Amino acid sequence: MSDDDADSAAGEGQELGITKSKQYDTGEWYAEIVQKAGLANYAPDGMSGFIVTRPRGYALWERLKGYLDAKFKDTGVRNAYFPMFIPESYLEAEKDIVEGFDPEVAWVTHGGHEELDERLAVRPTSESIITPYIAQWVRSHRDLPLRVNQWCSVVRWEATETKPFFRTKEFLWQEGHTAHADADDAWAETMTRLDQYESAYEEFLAIPVLRGRKPEHDKFPGADTTTTVEALMPDGKTVQGGTSHYLGTSFAEAFDITFSADDEADRLTHTTSWGISWRALGALIMTHSDDQGLVLPPTVAPTQVVVVPIWQEDTKDEVLEYAEGVADELEDAGVRVELDDRDTRNPGFKFNEHELDGVPVRFEIGPYEVEDGEVTVVHRPDGAESTVDREGIAATTRDHLDEVFAKLYAAAEENLEGEVREADSRDEILGTIGRHGGYVKAPWCGDERCEAEVKDQIAAEIVMVPFEEEDERRGTDHDDACAVCAEPATRTAYFAKSY
Amino acid sequence: MSDDDADSAAGEGQELGITKSKQYDTGEWYAEIVQKAGLANYAPDGMSGFIVTRPRGYALWERLKGYLDAKFKDTGVRNAYFPMFIPESYLEAEKDIVEGFDPEVAWVTHGGHEELDERLAVRPTSESIITPYIAQWVRSHRDLPLRVNQWCSVVRWEATETKPFFRTKEFLWQEGHTAHADADDAWAETMTRLDQYESAYEEFLAIPVLRGRKPEHDKFPGADTTTTVEALMPDGKTVQGGTSHYLGTSFAEAFDITFSADDEADRLTHTTSWGISWRALGALIMTHSDDQGLVLPPTVAPTQVVVVPIWQEDTKDEVLEYAEGVADELEDAGVRVELDDRDTRNPGFKFNEHELDGVPVRFEIGPYEVEDGEVTVVHRPDGAESTVDREGIAATTRDHLDEVFAKLYAAAEENLEGEVREADSRDEILGTIGRHGGYVKAPWCGDERCEAEVKDQIAAEIVMVPFEEEDERRGTDHDDACAVCAEPATRTAYFAKSY
Repeated sequence: MSDDDADSAAGEGQELGITKSKQYDTGEWYAEIVQKAGLANYAPDGMSGFIVTRPRGYALWERLKGYLDAKFKDTGVRNAYFPMFIPESYLEAEKDIVEGFDPEVAWVTHGGHEELDERLAVRPTSESIITPYIAQWVRSHRDLPLRVNQWCSVVRWEATETKPFFRTKEFLWQEGHTAHADADDAWAETMTRLDQYESAYEEFLAIPVLRGRKPEHDKFPGADTTTTVEALMPDGKTVQGGTSHYLGTSFAEAFDITFSADDEADRLTHTTSWGISWRALGALIMTHSDDQGLVLPPTVAPTQVVVVPIWQEDTKDEVLEYAEGVADELEDAGVRVELDDRDTRNPGFKFNEHELDGVPVRFEIGPYEVEDGEVTVVHRPDGAESTVDREGIAATTRDHLDEVFAKLYAAAEENLEGEVREADSRDEILGTIGRHGGYVKAPWCGDERCEAEVKDQIAAEIVMVPFEEEDERRGTDHDDACAVCAEPATRTAYFAKSY
Repeated sequence: MSDDDADSAAGEGQELGITKSKQYDTGEWYAEIVQKAGLANYAPDGMSGFIVTRPRGYALWERLKGYLDAKFKDTGVRNAYFPMFIPESYLEAEKDIVEGFDPEVAWVTHGGHEELDERLAVRPTSESIITPYIAQWVRSHRDLPLRVNQWCSVVRWEATETKPFFRTKEFLWQEGHTAHADADDAWAETMTRLDQYESAYEEFLAIPVLRGRKPEHDKFPGADTTTTVEALMPDGKTVQGGTSHYLGTSFAEAFDITFSADDEADRLTHTTSWGISWRALGALIMTHSDDQGLVLPPTVAPTQVVVVPIWQEDTKDEVLEYAEGVADELEDAGVRVELDDRDTRNPGFKFNEHELDGVPVRFEIGPYEVEDGEVTVVHRPDGAESTVDREGIAATTRDHLDEVFAKLYAAAEENLEGEVREADSRDEILGTIGRHGGYVKAPWCGDERCEAEVKDQIAAEIVMVPFEEEDERRGTDHDDACAVCAEPATRTAYFAKSY
């Protein structure tokens, strides 16, 4: 109990509830949710761009990590850990291979009282240190596919405004790195990981996503293809939710990852890398929460059900006993349940607090419920209230948790569906995004300059080219013209403003 | 399969087996085990002191982490994540509070192309950044106890020879930080964590430990009391296996962690911190392994049982089918089992490889086993072989896994018991440790100078003062004299050489 108090209270004397509006003041509202639901604090002076992830926030990351880690392991991935520093010469070598690679990093120049001979970068991503080891570990076709992953933090020294989980100089993520005997196997790997990211969003975080490729000029440096899942935020901007890169043989060539094939010839491997960061938590918080506070789907919620007993002095014993029985039964059934039996707080205070903290389902138990053998059930997202039988409460609870998940997913899906619009001209793209936000689908010739004409004016860019669309168009002749330059279109582009 | 090949093979053409002797060349033998069992590699040039932790090595850390994390959570601890950098002024502030605090750290001086206004230390430990937040989160007695923990990596720039897991500039660990209303509660916390470290060693890693306090002059800077579990290595040196610190009110005073008590007065909290690192893996590898390779207790082993089918062409189908049935039954029963049905390797090669990799139990299944409805079971530590009924194999396997654990623990315990010796004079301490290594128990006056006389000569120091001994001696009068200075002894000291 006491830890929970410390976590959710913003301190006596401060306004406890959310004061900003999600609709009208999304940025400030988001910052307020993060602080007041006890998810994160800003780092101290001198460390702008960093955050302190509090237990309530970290628990969300632990659950997402658990979900994905199990999927990774079921599909042949094993975790490893590589040094957090990368010698400058390694990054320089990557620059030579990989055009456009110039990460802004934190540089370690001194160890103890000595200046280092060579500066060390705090890893911004680990291709340049992991790939040489993969090259060392791969000898023959029997060593393939080789898959390693690490859950770690990385640092990118970007001088932008801090937004917890969305934009921080240090962030938590996982980075997977694999080597394969041929392009097909590596492409299948790329898609497996993208599928897993999609399911993390859709089946775990209750956020529908769109999936596709990044345009050529926006790929991960050195990649043959960068694939992405994109999630639409309530303010009409998209979040790049996770990326999976088919790297072709570029890294294998640079780092000499070869293997002896069945026919004994030495061949280059095809490699992939893929990553998802705690930005997914930003998307989670942003998508479902409301002006009362945090809203979480039951899948990821650390506490799924809070049981609040409501008693007068003369009914206290029977109400508490009944409430404890309910909580115990749920716990035995594997539901993450909390009994809030604090007698220093009244029920109204408790309701507000658990709403702020995003507990998906509240049980209210007073003398009437005890008398009638019932439980009053309230859903966090919409306040829907119903009375259910005490008997079979564990199974009933599962249904309610599923229902809450379905409500959240449906709301997000409805929002997304309404926010994909079509446009056939540059002005229409500009106007539509300018007025509504969201995604604008437009036929595109594939030339970066056509994107630039939109980007320069309203900072919207091509965030994704859907797989299906592209596959359909390839090799078929059709008479769509690029919405910007009117040359023949070769694919459909999704324009949006981006986090 | 293929990942496993990649992991355990040191590459074609290299000697696959262990060539060094545990008894005569412990250091080189240890390094060989780590490399050839695929646990870790050394980091590249320019990064001496760092290692790459490979999947087989990281899996051990994941399992130990899982074991302890569950215990922590069962006892009120919640995980969080704090920035990996700490501003220099924070460490300087800690220096003022905490005499003797002068960590050798890695310094970040540049972010991107800019020099930072203030240098940032890569965290060597996080008291100085975590404590101010605890101060902010603790308001009233209802917020106590407050417990946070993080699993992360830390960096200490010590210029010593690298020994994977034992001595590396970057290492993985957990650091727990708690605040309490009074000394008793904080002391109980300190002991709870020490108990959990002890059980991690004894019940999970099969390593008996000794427990006690560090001498005053060897405490964690700022601590009231530093407690430790110590494990004896086969070369007669001790490993500080995990430490739990009762910090008194020193950090609370420095960082102003106060709370309003029941009586509304503001009071200082009492704090603790406690940590265990991947050094525990070093102790694990060092303790049980032998000249054939890695040896692991079944508790921590990623693969507990390997099933090796042995067939001729005419018996292949029936042997494989039988072996698969056995493996499936074990898997259904929750045993971590691997069926090694590669037909590119002969059984002898497989036996050697799984011995090198430390799989605790091997099943051999050939045509005779199939005919007789049996399985041949071989224990990794001592090669003990027996034949058991196919029927009830899952339960039988549990017994064998327990037996292997018991064998390993008993061997380590026997070693430890033989390596605690007594001494009554400085010369006897020096001679005994010089000849035998191990621990020497001696009465001690408590003066650091008496330790220095031993330390200066043979680099052995007081690693621990047992709780019981000290409690017994306190307040009782006895006629033991300090083994070094002959003044009255106030406690028993354990001298040893240390990792």
